[in-house]
Amino acid sequence: MPRVVVDVMLKPEILDPQGQAVANALPRLGVSDVSSVRIGRRIEIDFTGEPDLDRAREIADKLLANPVIEDYTVRLVTDDAVDAHP
Amino acid sequence: MPRVVVDVMLKPEILDPQGQAVANALPRLGVSDVSSVRIGRRIEIDFTGEPDLDRAREIADKLLANPVIEDYTVRLVTDDAVDAHP
Repeated sequence: MPRVVVDVMLKPEILDPQGQAVANALPRLGVSDVSSVRIGRRIEIDFTGEPDLDRAREIADKLLANPVIEDYTVRLVTDDAVDAHP
Repeated sequence: MPRVVVDVMLKPEILDPQGQAVANALPRLGVSDVSSVRIGRRIEIDFTGEPDLDRAREIADKLLANPVIEDYTVRLVTDDAVDAHP
């Protein structure tokens, strides 16, 4: 059964201190070719029946994202893609 | 320039209280067809040159995920997909 994935990221113009902390730690790991790290949320929503993108969008609007500082995307993901761990 | 996206989710067998809180709030919004909500992190990494998946995997291992309780996936995303906000 495909699931709905909502990706919530801070708007590009909003400072992301958590991402900056990771970016600042990278030189200590010997990594010098990263220009930016941004950290957001990934929410996986399983429906009892058919996945409903409009419903997921409504949930994202009301519960998952703060539209003043965050952008979100809603999309359908098949199980194959979700389980593709390295 | 494509960017590398790391998705970090709690392993399926680990309880996700944050996701459960959202799932429990849904009936109050009139949503009754959601069976599960799981909340994880989405990390966008921009490289100064070519995106390097192996490097991103190393960063995820050492800085972004706790392999005891979390799974992660590393993938390349083009700008088009990232900007596809609803």
